[in-house]
Amino acid sequence: MARRRSGGAGGVSGAERADAPVIVLVETQMGENIGAAARAMANFGLRELRLVRPRDGWPNEKARAAASRGDTIIDAVRLYETPEAAIADLNLVYATTARPHDIAKPVVSPARAASDMRAAIGGGERVGILFGRERWGLTSDEVGLADEILTLPVDPVFASLNIAQALVVVAYEWRKAVLGDADWTPFPEKQRSPQAEKEEVLAFYGHLEAALDEVQFFRPPEKRQHMVRNLRSIFQKARLTSQEVRSLRGMLAALERRPTRLDAKTGAAPPKEGDGS
Amino acid sequence: MARRRSGGAGGVSGAERADAPVIVLVETQMGENIGAAARAMANFGLRELRLVRPRDGWPNEKARAAASRGDTIIDAVRLYETPEAAIADLNLVYATTARPHDIAKPVVSPARAASDMRAAIGGGERVGILFGRERWGLTSDEVGLADEILTLPVDPVFASLNIAQALVVVAYEWRKAVLGDADWTPFPEKQRSPQAEKEEVLAFYGHLEAALDEVQFFRPPEKRQHMVRNLRSIFQKARLTSQEVRSLRGMLAALERRPTRLDAKTGAAPPKEGDGS
Repeated sequence: MARRRSGGAGGVSGAERADAPVIVLVETQMGENIGAAARAMANFGLRELRLVRPRDGWPNEKARAAASRGDTIIDAVRLYETPEAAIADLNLVYATTARPHDIAKPVVSPARAASDMRAAIGGGERVGILFGRERWGLTSDEVGLADEILTLPVDPVFASLNIAQALVVVAYEWRKAVLGDADWTPFPEKQRSPQAEKEEVLAFYGHLEAALDEVQFFRPPEKRQHMVRNLRSIFQKARLTSQEVRSLRGMLAALERRPTRLDAKTGAAPPKEGDGS
Repeated sequence: MARRRSGGAGGVSGAERADAPVIVLVETQMGENIGAAARAMANFGLRELRLVRPRDGWPNEKARAAASRGDTIIDAVRLYETPEAAIADLNLVYATTARPHDIAKPVVSPARAASDMRAAIGGGERVGILFGRERWGLTSDEVGLADEILTLPVDPVFASLNIAQALVVVAYEWRKAVLGDADWTPFPEKQRSPQAEKEEVLAFYGHLEAALDEVQFFRPPEKRQHMVRNLRSIFQKARLTSQEVRSLRGMLAALERRPTRLDAKTGAAPPKEGDGS
C-alpha cells in the first residue's frame, strides 16, 4: 500500500505526517489523562488517538481541557468497544507494560521501539501502541494481542509512571527517531556575534596589564608572567566578541578614572585622585 | 570534594545515588504539578527537589497526593525565597525553556544535557535544572542565572508541554545516561525455552508434509517443492521450542484423526472416517 512519507527531519510539522504510530488507550479512567496524552502526542508529532471504552464516556470535557493545544487530536478521537477492534487495521502492535507478564514476547525499550517502528512504517506497515488502565495497566490477554512488549527504564524500586507520563517518553523517542538527531533543538542558540579578532583582544590585554602595572598589582615581579597568563586565560574562556572587548575597555578606563567617551561628550571632568595616570 | 559514586548501572537504585541533578521549580502554581514532578523524579532516579515560592505554599496536600511513590522526595523538599538562593551551592545550572530568550547561551537537547551533566557530576560538580511557571516559564533574568538553556525537541507547531511532562523527558534522559544503555529494560523477556533441535523440527516438517501428501494438498505436483519451502519458512520464523513442536504434532495428529495421547490414556476411540490413514 502506498503511503505518504514525511520529508526532511527538523522542519517537518507533525500535521503533515500521517505515518506515525497510533496510540490506543484501553479503558482509561480519567479524562485528564486522556487530555494529557493528547497534549504529549501533539508535542511530539503523533496524531491518531483511539479509545477503548473510556470509563467516563466520550466526549469528555476534562480531556479537552487538559489537552491544551492537542484539541485537534481530541476532535479526531475514534472509539472502540474492544482492543481487538481498535488494532484491527494495524500491522505491528506494542503493549506498554510496567511489569513482566508471563508471556514470551520481545521486551523493548522506548528507544529501541521508536527505531523499529520507524523501520516498520517505512516499510508500509501501520503501527500502534497500547496503553492500559491507570491502576493496573493491560490484562495479559491484551498484552497477548501485541507483537512486542514496550517498557520504560524506570528505577525498579519506584516504578510508578502514570500513562500520560509513559506516553510522553514513548512519543518523545518517536520524535527523536523522526528527527534522526538526538541533539536537535526547536530553536537555535541566539545568533552571537563572531569572536573578536585577536589583535583587538591582545590590545585589551595590553591595556589591562598596563593598568595593573600602574597600581603595582603584579607582586613580586618574578610572578608577573605567570599571573598575566592566568588573567588572560580567564578572558580567553569567555570567547569575547568585539563589542564585549569594547565594554571591558570602557570598564577598565572607568576604573582607572580615565575620561570615558561619555565624559568626553558631556564635557564633565572625570573624578581624579592625583595619581600618576 | 569527595562524592559518593554510583556502582554498576542497571541494578543501582536511585535511593543510593546522591550524585544526580537537583530539580528547582520556580513559582510553580499547581500542587498537582509539583507532585507529578516528584513522581517522575522518583521513577528516573532523581532525588532532590527545591521549590522557589510555590504559589499555594508548602506543604501542599495535592502535591503529596499526585506524587504517588515519590513521597520521600516530597518529604525532603527544600524551600527558597529566590532562584539565586536555590542554586547557590550548585556549579552547573540549566534553564529549561520552551521558547528562545534573547540571551546568548548554549542551547542543548535533553540527551546532550544528560550526557554533559553526567560528565560534570563525575568531575565533582553539583548540577541543577531550573523549571519555570506553568503559564510563562522562567523570566529572562532567571534564564540568565543558568550556564546553558535546555529545551525539548517538540513540534514547533504545537509546542505546549507542561512542566511535569518536560521533567519526565529530562529525568528519563538522565536515567538513560546513568544506565549507559538505551536498550535497557527493567525486566527481561520472559525466559523462553531454547529453540528445538533441528532434528525435531525436520521430523515435524516430514510429518506435516506426509499428512498433506495424504490429502493431495500439493497440486500440481511440480509445485510441491516450492510450496513445501514456503510452509517450512512460516514455522521457521516462529523459532519453535521443543514443546511447541510437540504441540503442533499433536494438533496435526488430531486433524489427521489419528489417536492422540489423551485418547490412548482414556481408551476412547478417536473419530475415524475410514480414509487411508
